[in-house]
Amino acid sequence: MEHIDYTPWYISPKTKCLLSDYETEPTSKGWRSGSELEEHLADMGDKLDKLQSTLHAAKTRGLLVVFQGMDTAGKDGVIRSVFSHVSPLGVRAEAFGVPTELESRHDFLWRIHAKAPARGEMVIFNRSHYEDVLVTRVRGWIDEETCQKRYNDILHFESLLQDAGISVLKCYLHISKSEQKKRLQSRLDDQRKHWKLQPSDFGDRDLWPQFTQAYEEALSATSTPESPWYVVPADSKPYRDSFVAGLIVQTLDNMKLKMPKPSFDLSKVKLS
Amino acid sequence: MEHIDYTPWYISPKTKCLLSDYETEPTSKGWRSGSELEEHLADMGDKLDKLQSTLHAAKTRGLLVVFQGMDTAGKDGVIRSVFSHVSPLGVRAEAFGVPTELESRHDFLWRIHAKAPARGEMVIFNRSHYEDVLVTRVRGWIDEETCQKRYNDILHFESLLQDAGISVLKCYLHISKSEQKKRLQSRLDDQRKHWKLQPSDFGDRDLWPQFTQAYEEALSATSTPESPWYVVPADSKPYRDSFVAGLIVQTLDNMKLKMPKPSFDLSKVKLS
Repeated sequence: MEHIDYTPWYISPKTKCLLSDYETEPTSKGWRSGSELEEHLADMGDKLDKLQSTLHAAKTRGLLVVFQGMDTAGKDGVIRSVFSHVSPLGVRAEAFGVPTELESRHDFLWRIHAKAPARGEMVIFNRSHYEDVLVTRVRGWIDEETCQKRYNDILHFESLLQDAGISVLKCYLHISKSEQKKRLQSRLDDQRKHWKLQPSDFGDRDLWPQFTQAYEEALSATSTPESPWYVVPADSKPYRDSFVAGLIVQTLDNMKLKMPKPSFDLSKVKLS
Repeated sequence: MEHIDYTPWYISPKTKCLLSDYETEPTSKGWRSGSELEEHLADMGDKLDKLQSTLHAAKTRGLLVVFQGMDTAGKDGVIRSVFSHVSPLGVRAEAFGVPTELESRHDFLWRIHAKAPARGEMVIFNRSHYEDVLVTRVRGWIDEETCQKRYNDILHFESLLQDAGISVLKCYLHISKSEQKKRLQSRLDDQRKHWKLQPSDFGDRDLWPQFTQAYEEALSATSTPESPWYVVPADSKPYRDSFVAGLIVQTLDNMKLKMPKPSFDLSKVKLS
């Protein structure tokens, strides 16, 4: 397989990251453009489909893909584009909203753990346990000390998954504030999307610097070689989709998955 | 929307059905062929996607689609083809295999009920509670009386879902014995599929008449206008996919779903 080096978008552990160092549009760092992106996505889609079949058959490893990002960053969009290449039987998508009354009476990882992939499974999180160190932090619902403790809880939780054969791949969908404006405007213009709009979609925008800082801290504190965070340039949708598909394919490819042997001697089968 | 009359493939309640009365290939009953099928599937895929969005937004109704059929009838295949048009966030696929030790210590509907759709959800069952009146019956693990009781349990269970706004649509994928032979042979020829093969895949074939009879009884006993069984001609994959997609679209269309109103006054929004 053609090798793409995703290192420039990987957040180094224990190094304070600055999101302003990362482009939201792919310009200087090289990569495809135009119709090449479509071809690449289709190609990665095929590979993803095959790798998922082997993951399912082998049952030795599992994969959790976490998507986070500001409102309108494209979490729903990237999930639709990338995973439409895989059978619904091969992928499970879990969305985490405001915790229910029962969920909020548990520790913050309880509802998350219940939805974790088993070996053989590929699971997508649309928002995740990271909300518990992001919106909670920005809104002042938890203090600095609790937040630091939670980073540690998250590191432990993800290494528990890793020890069970589950890889965790985390994508921060990185958009600019002006791109968000365009997208919010287009939601206001599209009547089919009105029901989904909340005052907070617009209010959170005023807290852009605070959210950026909370992300920078959380990403820096929880990116590890085993459970890496990548900053995905997400102003351009075709680029974003192609980037994410390639990243997931590479992650699965690195697992060196193998089809299991048949469970009995097939040469003895006689079809009547 | 163009109206297709699916009545010829609907199993009338309380009438003993004979599967030999139904074609496995679409010949005499009219319908599309060739590239028209592809176009129809793409068209239905688009409609399904839009209807699913509205189902999710409205949260007034839910849909459960059950797939049953002999080995190699195409359950996995139809799920992949039809639902690849919908975001993984909008559909949940559940496969039911041999019950676990815990599951078999519960009543047969326990594990099924736990996976039922909520209002707003579309769920696919790849095999289902119907296995508990099919393979169990053919293998003699349950007696006639238990089987009759279970038909009744199933009718009650599905009407419970119906009362909660969940429609149940049931598809029997109807293939001929000679088509099954071809498909089993092609699995023997494809090394990537070897791991999945079980001796029972070939042994069940010798029980074709017994399985057919068990299906005929179960389908007749549990088809109702609210939770209908359809016999899907499934020897041709493009026809099968197109048929099922159209049937699901029509079921959702009949719900007359409406987008909810926005939750606040959008005219007051000012984007900074």
